[in-house]
Amino acid sequence: MEILQALIQKINTKTKPLGSLGLLENIAIQIGLIQNTLSPVIKNPSLLVFAADHGITAEGVSAYPKEVTTQMVYNFLNGGAAINVFCRQHNIALKIVDAGVDADFENSEMLIHAKIRKGTSNILKIPAMTLDECNMAINKGAEIVLNEYKKGCNTIAFGEMGIGNTSSAALLMSRYCGIPIDQCVGKGTGHNKEGLKKKTAILQQALNTHNSSSDPLITLSTFGGFEIAMIAGAMLKAAELNMVILIDGFIISSALLAAYQLNKNILKNCIFCHTSNEKGHRLMLKHFKAKPVLDLNLRLGEGTGAAVAFPIIQSAINFLNEMSSFESAGISKKE
Amino acid sequence: MEILQALIQKINTKTKPLGSLGLLENIAIQIGLIQNTLSPVIKNPSLLVFAADHGITAEGVSAYPKEVTTQMVYNFLNGGAAINVFCRQHNIALKIVDAGVDADFENSEMLIHAKIRKGTSNILKIPAMTLDECNMAINKGAEIVLNEYKKGCNTIAFGEMGIGNTSSAALLMSRYCGIPIDQCVGKGTGHNKEGLKKKTAILQQALNTHNSSSDPLITLSTFGGFEIAMIAGAMLKAAELNMVILIDGFIISSALLAAYQLNKNILKNCIFCHTSNEKGHRLMLKHFKAKPVLDLNLRLGEGTGAAVAFPIIQSAINFLNEMSSFESAGISKKE
Repeated sequence: MEILQALIQKINTKTKPLGSLGLLENIAIQIGLIQNTLSPVIKNPSLLVFAADHGITAEGVSAYPKEVTTQMVYNFLNGGAAINVFCRQHNIALKIVDAGVDADFENSEMLIHAKIRKGTSNILKIPAMTLDECNMAINKGAEIVLNEYKKGCNTIAFGEMGIGNTSSAALLMSRYCGIPIDQCVGKGTGHNKEGLKKKTAILQQALNTHNSSSDPLITLSTFGGFEIAMIAGAMLKAAELNMVILIDGFIISSALLAAYQLNKNILKNCIFCHTSNEKGHRLMLKHFKAKPVLDLNLRLGEGTGAAVAFPIIQSAINFLNEMSSFESAGISKKE
Repeated sequence: MEILQALIQKINTKTKPLGSLGLLENIAIQIGLIQNTLSPVIKNPSLLVFAADHGITAEGVSAYPKEVTTQMVYNFLNGGAAINVFCRQHNIALKIVDAGVDADFENSEMLIHAKIRKGTSNILKIPAMTLDECNMAINKGAEIVLNEYKKGCNTIAFGEMGIGNTSSAALLMSRYCGIPIDQCVGKGTGHNKEGLKKKTAILQQALNTHNSSSDPLITLSTFGGFEIAMIAGAMLKAAELNMVILIDGFIISSALLAAYQLNKNILKNCIFCHTSNEKGHRLMLKHFKAKPVLDLNLRLGEGTGAAVAFPIIQSAINFLNEMSSFESAGISKKE
């Protein structure tokens, strides 16, 4: 790979000790490789928050009532959520995608209507969605990303909102990675020890209800949420369009697991932005051999880990493009 | 502490699960406490890079020739170094302070002339500086910070450039913390295993040459660099003016060790921005019970760890000031 050698060479002539920019150097190389250039650039970064409801909330897997999904969508549209704050800070274009929320939203500039259905079915009883619905979600996600791309975006991040979606994420992880469910379940955004125990038992029951399948789409349709399936489709399209993909936390990583089953090459486009203290997430990152940018103990979702990490990604690009070389600055090298 | 309770209360009413912004919440609380307000603000952030030469470079403790200190100052003034790139990215005002470089610099808008002497004496033989020089450096650092403060700056970061200054930092750490020198020495910015062994032996010899003193200023004048002493003075003044102090890496932390001997309250103003892989630095952070913001494996100095972490600090302030509350957004709380 000539471009890899040239990137390393460019970095090593910068006025700094070899390797001294650590992870920033890795990120610069990765984006240089994605864009096949020594002078990569981040254009019109965009963050899409996919929201949907989950039938399994009827079983009490979440510490929050399911209405919060709808309420949080309104909060996004009004600009008051954490992800609004961080996207504003970094000039990241923010869109909210209704992938399957149990509510009817008015039109809004920030909102993309892409509802598959008003929430998935209860996984404990039947598959979350039909295969047709799953494909629809994947295609819709791809369409939305293509639209961003056409507007000049080359770097995309994904966020999610959906009360109950850590259950879907844990189930997908368990099936795709062959890891027992108790190692995939975390406290979500608000559980205590007892709540966690109950959640684990319910999810084990859900696994018992549905046979394993070697078809990744069947697994996704059985356990996924509409937002997770749509994000998987969005990621696959972003990889196809050779965009930089910023990976947030546990739920987004579970969508990546699904996308990865369908395109193993997707990882070269992915930058893992944040690791949380949730053991399931750490295990998933290990599965991807990922070394995330941040470890701030965030566990909020919405894509906040990706948004907060964004300026670090930009720093990696900037040093590569803007720092002078030993030669141009007339500086002595190591003795 | 009423303000602490009020800050926690404000954070806990934000539209997010309790504690879910992790370290950002800690930072928001810390800055709220420093500024004694529920709506803290970062004003005119400034980063001062203090540069100086070190007599001990004559012993071959560094992998780089000492001329690099001067050359890097020119690189800063020309805008081509890593710290220039990151300060530009985040609109941090950058100044370079000649605390004791072995060169004569022309005037420049970015440069502050504060030279104590053209490099310290060789610690292996005599103290690095006299007590008078040490006090001069401390006072000069204070004066420079006061000047930034008067221009409206309430948040300040420090960087350093000085070939050989990891030796001073390791010696100060060893004496101030009572930790054997081999645990304080790192590879610096460019050593191999053999170079490290040689450096450790030389530093042990330097420790043997000078008796311990219970007077922190004598220790600082014996082992410090002019940039380190000046930074210590700058930090003390910043704490006195109740500014937010962003702490970079190993060298800057050694200056903080000195400042801390003179004012134990200084830590409440300090945000530790980056931890490196250098074992000495990790040990020093442990000494301060610090939980740094970033761990990007940077080992470049110049204040780069503080500059790269800056947007994360800003994110902490922003969520506190801009996020809506459950009540204002009409969102259901945990069941």
